[in-house]
Amino acid sequence: MDFAFPIRIYWEDTDAGGIVFYANYLKFFERARTEWLRSLGLEQQKLREQTGGMFVVTQAQVDYHRPARLDDQLLVTARLQASGRASLTIRQQAFLQSPADGPQLLSEASIRIGWVDGASMRPVRIPISLLEQLS
Amino acid sequence: MDFAFPIRIYWEDTDAGGIVFYANYLKFFERARTEWLRSLGLEQQKLREQTGGMFVVTQAQVDYHRPARLDDQLLVTARLQASGRASLTIRQQAFLQSPADGPQLLSEASIRIGWVDGASMRPVRIPISLLEQLS
Amino acid sequence: MDFAFPIRIYWEDTDAGGIVFYANYLKFFERARTEWLRSLGLEQQKLREQTGGMFVVTQAQVDYHRPARLDDQLLVTARLQASGRASLTIRQQAFLQSPADGPQLLSEASIRIGWVDGASMRPVRIPISLLEQLS
Amino acid sequence: MDFAFPIRIYWEDTDAGGIVFYANYLKFFERARTEWLRSLGLEQQKLREQTGGMFVVTQAQVDYHRPARLDDQLLVTARLQASGRASLTIRQQAFLQSPADGPQLLSEASIRIGWVDGASMRPVRIPISLLEQLS
Repeated sequence: MDFAFPIRIYWEDTDAGGIVFYANYLKFFERARTEWLRSLGLEQQKLREQTGGMFVVTQAQVDYHRPARLDDQLLVTARLQASGRASLTIRQQAFLQSPADGPQLLSEASIRIGWVDGASMRPVRIPISLLEQLS
Repeated sequence: MDFAFPIRIYWEDTDAGGIVFYANYLKFFERARTEWLRSLGLEQQKLREQTGGMFVVTQAQVDYHRPARLDDQLLVTARLQASGRASLTIRQQAFLQSPADGPQLLSEASIRIGWVDGASMRPVRIPISLLEQLS
Repeated sequence: MDFAFPIRIYWEDTDAGGIVFYANYLKFFERARTEWLRSLGLEQQKLREQTGGMFVVTQAQVDYHRPARLDDQLLVTARLQASGRASLTIRQQAFLQSPADGPQLLSEASIRIGWVDGASMRPVRIPISLLEQLS
Repeated sequence: MDFAFPIRIYWEDTDAGGIVFYANYLKFFERARTEWLRSLGLEQQKLREQTGGMFVVTQAQVDYHRPARLDDQLLVTARLQASGRASLTIRQQAFLQSPADGPQLLSEASIRIGWVDGASMRPVRIPISLLEQLS
């Protein structure tokens, strides 16, 4: 089963269309990725202090199926889809938790993140210890 | 030549990595789309009042090549890539305007937007008058 | 004891100064206010559907004492400071939860919210049933 | 006359109330402050590289009078209200530019910013050369 993280919709997340502003799903997906990494023992601030490296997003593909609204309760998942020497691809989904109708898929994404040197921003190999914690 | 819109990078756009937070490029692309529509005589607030419909993003594919930083000056483009009965695909690019090295491609995206009824959020045909203004 | 709500710091919350962007504390304070209202049985989306009214912020006074950083865990409080016929003032504080040093006050605010008609945006009296739930 | 900077309202700025989300005025005020500093020859990224210091907001007092909406055109001002050894207070206003009714005051703020060492985040004296450029 995928890692799943609950996210509540607040005013800050919505727009004048009355629904969640679509760019904010990238925030929700990142919160879930961050908590997924944390659940594997990986804190990004500490990672940077220890290794000098950090993850940056290099590609995002997002499909939007249905809108979410103020006060909605979402469940956002994260799963390692593919891993290379310098990048990972994470598969993510956002579900509305509807007491009446069960979970409804709102949005899904593939997010590719690369590991870069924090000073030069150039891609470098993901530390082996980090890859081991991921698998 | 594509429609192009200048965007300045402020503190609000950056993150603790020292670079522009990647989700914010979706905001930059949307500002450029909005101004591109406005340059064609289309104001979205008025469109909604007149037709009851509005555009929503249904798919976003974004590639990130290089980071932008605080105080950088960007130029963001928009071009109609494809149009259907109920959706449009817009091709967009964000360039850094570097006085020394000329424009550098930072990020590029294909954004698919669908036309929906503002109340039901269901896809409906794009009004013909609107399609005519776009082409 | 004040109502308290935990908030984790993500990349989206930070800026290139390496700290949480100060405007984002207004979001944190609002999440805590929203959960405080929810804990009293008040859901804002339902309130609007039932009464046609909604809360809007009319004044915000915020003091910033210390910065928060990526991965920090905050505790944000909310307490009714004063209530009138058409507005409430909420007192709020944001604490860093530091395992080593105990809670540290990062920021504090007084937020005045008014009750308005959702269509005209004009101030109206807060419904009595709502005031009763608040006290 | 105060320094004034035009700001257009996009989807990203609005919320489900159909109006601009109040926290976003802090972003608008900051864009205007940044451009006001730039008009005086002060670029914040360069300042940090040259001096190791940066401005942080230590207090914000904001009054909200009327809402702005999608597609609105605002004019946001900045004026030095007071200056001390380690902090400045900036007075700012946001006006709606209404062709029919003339400018309407939407929001106004006093923002106190302190000068800190970028590494320790501790308050330090504002460099004299910087103060001279401000006056």
